[in-house]
Amino acid sequence: MINADRALRIILGAVPPPGRETVDLRDASGRTAAEHIVADRDIPPFRNSSMDGYAVRHAELKGASPGRPVTLTVAGESSAGNPFTGRMGKGEAIRIMTGGKLPSGADAVVPVEKTNEKSPRAVTFDAPARKGDFVRLPGEDIPRGHRVIAKGELLTPYHAGILAATGHAKVRVSVRPRVGILATGDELVGPGRTPGEGKIRNSSSYALLGLVKEAGARARLLGIVRDRKKSIRKKIREGLAFDVLLMTGGVSVGAHDYVGEALRRAGVDIRFWRVNIRPGSPLLFGVADGTLVFGLPGNPVSTAVTFLQFVRPALGKMLGRNDLFPVRVRAFTDEPLRVKDGKKSYMRGIVREENGVLRVKTTGSQSSGVMTSLLRANCLILIPEGTVAVSGGSPVEIEFLNDPF
Amino acid sequence: MINADRALRIILGAVPPPGRETVDLRDASGRTAAEHIVADRDIPPFRNSSMDGYAVRHAELKGASPGRPVTLTVAGESSAGNPFTGRMGKGEAIRIMTGGKLPSGADAVVPVEKTNEKSPRAVTFDAPARKGDFVRLPGEDIPRGHRVIAKGELLTPYHAGILAATGHAKVRVSVRPRVGILATGDELVGPGRTPGEGKIRNSSSYALLGLVKEAGARARLLGIVRDRKKSIRKKIREGLAFDVLLMTGGVSVGAHDYVGEALRRAGVDIRFWRVNIRPGSPLLFGVADGTLVFGLPGNPVSTAVTFLQFVRPALGKMLGRNDLFPVRVRAFTDEPLRVKDGKKSYMRGIVREENGVLRVKTTGSQSSGVMTSLLRANCLILIPEGTVAVSGGSPVEIEFLNDPF
Repeated sequence: MINADRALRIILGAVPPPGRETVDLRDASGRTAAEHIVADRDIPPFRNSSMDGYAVRHAELKGASPGRPVTLTVAGESSAGNPFTGRMGKGEAIRIMTGGKLPSGADAVVPVEKTNEKSPRAVTFDAPARKGDFVRLPGEDIPRGHRVIAKGELLTPYHAGILAATGHAKVRVSVRPRVGILATGDELVGPGRTPGEGKIRNSSSYALLGLVKEAGARARLLGIVRDRKKSIRKKIREGLAFDVLLMTGGVSVGAHDYVGEALRRAGVDIRFWRVNIRPGSPLLFGVADGTLVFGLPGNPVSTAVTFLQFVRPALGKMLGRNDLFPVRVRAFTDEPLRVKDGKKSYMRGIVREENGVLRVKTTGSQSSGVMTSLLRANCLILIPEGTVAVSGGSPVEIEFLNDPF
Repeated sequence: MINADRALRIILGAVPPPGRETVDLRDASGRTAAEHIVADRDIPPFRNSSMDGYAVRHAELKGASPGRPVTLTVAGESSAGNPFTGRMGKGEAIRIMTGGKLPSGADAVVPVEKTNEKSPRAVTFDAPARKGDFVRLPGEDIPRGHRVIAKGELLTPYHAGILAATGHAKVRVSVRPRVGILATGDELVGPGRTPGEGKIRNSSSYALLGLVKEAGARARLLGIVRDRKKSIRKKIREGLAFDVLLMTGGVSVGAHDYVGEALRRAGVDIRFWRVNIRPGSPLLFGVADGTLVFGLPGNPVSTAVTFLQFVRPALGKMLGRNDLFPVRVRAFTDEPLRVKDGKKSYMRGIVREENGVLRVKTTGSQSSGVMTSLLRANCLILIPEGTVAVSGGSPVEIEFLNDPF
């Protein structure tokens, strides 16, 4: 029985480098940058106004006051996309819209609500302006040549906006791994069936389907296979056509005989079986000809926890992601926590904020049979290997299920 | 100029009730439950073992110790899906696998590692067992008839697992609103073009595309329309075929003449224009014949903030979601915050955890021209209307961009 860190090192060490492909910018959100992204020009590209108002020479408004207003001639207009192309002369102002290009000769903008528009041709100011007021400078946000997105970053909608602004109508991203999901077990029937005597419905496959997609990979359900050596071997061979094969069930002490042997006979090199964790200790991992094979415990809670802790980082590495793990933070536990036999434990928890402080409680029974604990949880509470008790009020390490950091 | 709360009330008041459709369980993650979901049977459905081991009558192991071991006859086996169908007799034990049905007559399980397997037919115990040890009871997790998912809940992968377990191969979900995204502005060119004099690339549409999808709706880009009344009117009519039309740009003081008039002439009843917020004050909202029309400021930061604060809750309500808003929590600001003119402000912030306490700083310049602020931010800092300064070290209200609660 190895520990969680060792298991993770073995898994990550077996991950092949990511493939790359080019996608349209419209499909970029949720993908992973496969190269550094550099701005092709300054953003903003030219001096422009951050307000609707008048472009002026600040020196000409020196000393302006309600008692001594300054009147300038309105010599033209500059709106977004329709710049004033001449040069602003002495004694002149240019009517300017938000985003409009600052005309040559101007060095400040006065917002329209601080002016007195005498006529279409004249505008009066009763306060001075400072050089640069309401003027956005070229490259102020992103200078040309600046790396705006690093290889390995997850592309969010905000990244898509930046990609558009910096001239990337197409983007190089990593190829999404294809994941096959295979449920094993004589006890399983599909969700549309009524289970007979001693049978239950296959639920883990359906949770995995969504978890795999959320992790940025493609998923396909391969169905349910009975505990017959020949059927399992056949299905495993089908599963080895995928980049990752996720099997659920068939790894507990009794069942392992079937699945372990079937995996070996299908050419899978089993790298480990059983990890010192709770829940999910019967986790199995093997490799065959470029396919990563995970044998996840069939119990839905164990399936989900081992997926989050071991499969998701592997998928992240297959995608070339920089961040493979959620940020771990501390929260104060409301209640004492007790762990049997000192295994590294992942308890389902509910974290909340109180006056700026994070506080956490468990979802209740930590039996891996309690599926509903995953609906109520918003975090996993991580209890290190060797710890058997944590007193109430102490800080514990947690991982949000939906990492906000 | 109305305030943010009033604007939101007007928007939410205009949302039509959600439509419903039935989808395959495979496509349920990310959708919204359109009805309460009830378990069709107990979960677990029968007494079963949470360990590999032996099913016993606990009374028969009373007083067992290393000096006085008790030996029972192994009368059969119960594995998941293959129950032992007879009744366990006196002096007998049944070999049982995790998930295996507890045979009639048994009332406890002893894990295999705590037994001494003498032969295939005999097993010895050197410690007593308690009634119910390692036995999961029917309905322990979910009793039959129990509501497992409420109408209006966002379906996560964990919900999909529960739906499978409780017999829902198909699910009633709300129909995803169709959202058209239209950029307006003479200054805009597509991301694949090199902008000419005074022009910039359309980036807001691409950010909105991903934000709309993340919010659970379908999005279509309707392109860029120039500031010509006729073209705008034509495109608006095209946009009114959608459930929601998101326009960007054309709502600032100068440009509003075009867009406002075009909207009115296309039959849009404009409910408000301009809200007392920063950034994004030129926000416009109207309704036409079942279509919600948002005029979002064209600046990418303002577009994103007004989307998150005003459009996303509307999409959530169109989906019939129970939770329309991210959870607001408190964090301590590292720095003093200053807000011009007391508008309700949404500052881009970076929140982190330190010893269980949430601390936040801004992303730096809060100019709405700084697009990159959205890449670095993980939260919005909310400054209430009327507040002009917050001192360093005080608690402020924040919303995570990726709500973990």
